[in-house]
Amino acid sequence: MTKPFPDTPTFAGFNAPIRLEGEIFDLEVVEGEIPTALDGTWYRCGADFYFPPLHGDDVFVNGDGVVSAFEFRDGHVDFRTRFVRTEKFVLERAARKALFGAYRNPFSDDPSVAGKNRGTANTNIVWHGGRLLALKEAARPVEIDPVTLETIGDWDFDARLTSLTMTAHPKFDPSIGEMLFYGSAAKGETTPDIVYYAADADGRITKEIWIDPPYASMMHDFGVTKDHVIFLVMPTTSSLERMREGGPIYVWDEDLETYLGVMSRHGDGSDLRWFTGPPRFVFHILNCFSEGALVHIDSAVSEIQSFPFFPDKNGRPFDPERAKARITRWTCDLTSNSSGFVERTINPLGCELIRIDDRIALSNYTYGFIPFHDAGARQAGDANAGFNSVGRLNVRTGEMEDSFFAGPNASVQEPQFVPRSAQAQEGDGYLLVIVNRLDQNRCDLVILDANSLSGAPVARIKLPVRTRAIHGNWVARAELP
Amino acid sequence: MTKPFPDTPTFAGFNAPIRLEGEIFDLEVVEGEIPTALDGTWYRCGADFYFPPLHGDDVFVNGDGVVSAFEFRDGHVDFRTRFVRTEKFVLERAARKALFGAYRNPFSDDPSVAGKNRGTANTNIVWHGGRLLALKEAARPVEIDPVTLETIGDWDFDARLTSLTMTAHPKFDPSIGEMLFYGSAAKGETTPDIVYYAADADGRITKEIWIDPPYASMMHDFGVTKDHVIFLVMPTTSSLERMREGGPIYVWDEDLETYLGVMSRHGDGSDLRWFTGPPRFVFHILNCFSEGALVHIDSAVSEIQSFPFFPDKNGRPFDPERAKARITRWTCDLTSNSSGFVERTINPLGCELIRIDDRIALSNYTYGFIPFHDAGARQAGDANAGFNSVGRLNVRTGEMEDSFFAGPNASVQEPQFVPRSAQAQEGDGYLLVIVNRLDQNRCDLVILDANSLSGAPVARIKLPVRTRAIHGNWVARAELP
Repeated sequence: MTKPFPDTPTFAGFNAPIRLEGEIFDLEVVEGEIPTALDGTWYRCGADFYFPPLHGDDVFVNGDGVVSAFEFRDGHVDFRTRFVRTEKFVLERAARKALFGAYRNPFSDDPSVAGKNRGTANTNIVWHGGRLLALKEAARPVEIDPVTLETIGDWDFDARLTSLTMTAHPKFDPSIGEMLFYGSAAKGETTPDIVYYAADADGRITKEIWIDPPYASMMHDFGVTKDHVIFLVMPTTSSLERMREGGPIYVWDEDLETYLGVMSRHGDGSDLRWFTGPPRFVFHILNCFSEGALVHIDSAVSEIQSFPFFPDKNGRPFDPERAKARITRWTCDLTSNSSGFVERTINPLGCELIRIDDRIALSNYTYGFIPFHDAGARQAGDANAGFNSVGRLNVRTGEMEDSFFAGPNASVQEPQFVPRSAQAQEGDGYLLVIVNRLDQNRCDLVILDANSLSGAPVARIKLPVRTRAIHGNWVARAELP
Repeated sequence: MTKPFPDTPTFAGFNAPIRLEGEIFDLEVVEGEIPTALDGTWYRCGADFYFPPLHGDDVFVNGDGVVSAFEFRDGHVDFRTRFVRTEKFVLERAARKALFGAYRNPFSDDPSVAGKNRGTANTNIVWHGGRLLALKEAARPVEIDPVTLETIGDWDFDARLTSLTMTAHPKFDPSIGEMLFYGSAAKGETTPDIVYYAADADGRITKEIWIDPPYASMMHDFGVTKDHVIFLVMPTTSSLERMREGGPIYVWDEDLETYLGVMSRHGDGSDLRWFTGPPRFVFHILNCFSEGALVHIDSAVSEIQSFPFFPDKNGRPFDPERAKARITRWTCDLTSNSSGFVERTINPLGCELIRIDDRIALSNYTYGFIPFHDAGARQAGDANAGFNSVGRLNVRTGEMEDSFFAGPNASVQEPQFVPRSAQAQEGDGYLLVIVNRLDQNRCDLVILDANSLSGAPVARIKLPVRTRAIHGNWVARAELP
């Protein structure tokens, strides 16, 4: 493009746009060996601005969707990365410049793209019902070819998706292959409507329940157990009027309470009950499970909205300490007469991009894999204040039992657990971690033994370039066509 | 691959293999503007190891051929890079490891590839007769698709190429569109035979002359003027016996003299006359021209072979000072009875990867564009001893009139001159330079005004990754299909 990216932290240094499409066949294994048990593809999805923003600086979650794949086979791994051909991307590429404006604010767009799809497909990528779907909560899913990573097109579940949006965090029931998901702002930007869906193992929508929340809010994730569904309504509120006046879609409104809407997975939604508590914020669920009438929601909870670019409604300055997310258990008692939920911090470390052994999703479980900043491991001269470690948290004891330190001048992206075998116990397997080499303008893919995170890596794989994702998922070869 | 690259200077730091194939559409212009007069494609070709060498360390000239393209249009530039599908590359990729051994030594190969084409297509890329050819002096050319950079296949000039090899440095006569070239070791590795060809503007071979040199040697480049052809025989000698015993193809034999074979372009080669001088080495010709019976050969001349990995026959240690190449004029007087040539150093700075305004090739000329190390511009803390500058050398006065300093922790690759217009005077135009950002693991493409190299760049274009080439050539859009 003819103008440079803004000289702001969003685009500087290691955050600089990558903008690359291509492949590296047979990545270099610089340490150890890749276990042949790793047989499948790690798909990842992230945000990378293709063009400088239309209006000055921007927020990283407004970048263009880029999907990447690490395909493991016979102790080798191939890498491929490709931008999603959203309508936005295709239009802007043809114009060789940005045409769409601020995050989720259609009023800020170039008039030439009025009414066009603003979806960026930049958050998560999941495999279900024989389709690979790139997800962004503000739009419908985009189907991606699992081999070439080429874009197939928007996917509306054979016209059964009545929502204009789909969460980037669907849940999967490992026992029956169901995908559970929802759309928020389901009738358009800032509309309060939520709609919940279940899709069977073949990808067919089998249930649709519309929900009327206490107020319209950012709903990034939700909870599902074997028996219940939990909607999280927290005071990051949206306003069309504010956007029309040039403001952001979201502000943090600490005058409002947190609402947890709990309903049975097996009913029609008429049993939905709202539990309330103090203002809180959650981006990501770790896991949820039911114990009889007790519904447990484990997630990374902060006292305030943790993105500094969404302002406080009352003008309070952003407080990084209050924005720190800690693994916390909320419990709703369906037998209780109280409308409150119980809150208990499991571990005090600030963290995010948390994962579990997905085979135990929706059930009582023991382990979380938790990126955090290990201040003790920080070395002289290392100014990196980001997440430099990934720990194995025992959620039963609250103890961070073991952790991998990425090294000085390094940070970690969201980890991915892969079981050693289908029969392996919970947490017995490998942890895949992308390590950002902050001083080398590139990344490593590190394979750890999940039973021994502080031990020598099983393998360290060199990427000659940076790669960037927000979330990703492992798909075993047997599941792919 | 399952084993890492050796921890040697060949593969360390900025020299680390890149191994990437892909594209970056519409590169970021971080400074200035791209002149719309730049309308065409800068093709480049280099060596990048896809797999760790079969036997320990290796020499960089044995890497796999990678071609890249910067396509300029309407003030934008798109980048693409792709490995050449040589037979070697295809076989090794299928095996996911190296199968071919040492540089030009077939005895060092895995037996499974005996008799296969060892060509790497890793040195230069030229456009002639409607074909884009990737070149390596040890093999025949490989045709490349000028848009996709996909490999079309080996090109033998409709079976008219009788040599097994073609130089990576053909010459072009701008007035008639002829391509002049030769093959050395034309009948197989270490054979002394040289064969000279002329091909017309349509790519048809119209002349073939076999030449018997005084001894078999490495012949990387040659000279052509409007009226003469000059073969350079210098004491980097080859030996099949030595290779069979595990030695290198080449050694430096300072006991031998330099021979310059001069013949008319317009005859049948029977007038070929050898001029002799002290042992010298030349990788690259700057330009040659005839003034009546005087034939001038301007090149970068060193006292010894300048690749440290080809040993001295007499066991002398490599002397970097004697290996320094300086722009030097050799003159052969066809009316003289003496068999000697005259040598005159034009400028004392060590240099390489030298270029001119190609429109004045084969003729009396004024300017060379010369990468060199500017010690004065070197800054505190900058340990880079490579070429950090590109100068405009007036070959008539010997003066380095002006130069571009790439900055601390930076070095330059071979420059490319592009005229401001077809009618512009010699040297009036743009100089394209890839700058290696040694501390950022990436490159910039800098566009300079060739009339003001020390002034602010016309544009600086950011590459988020490294790119690597040995040589390249500009092809105007009007010449492409």
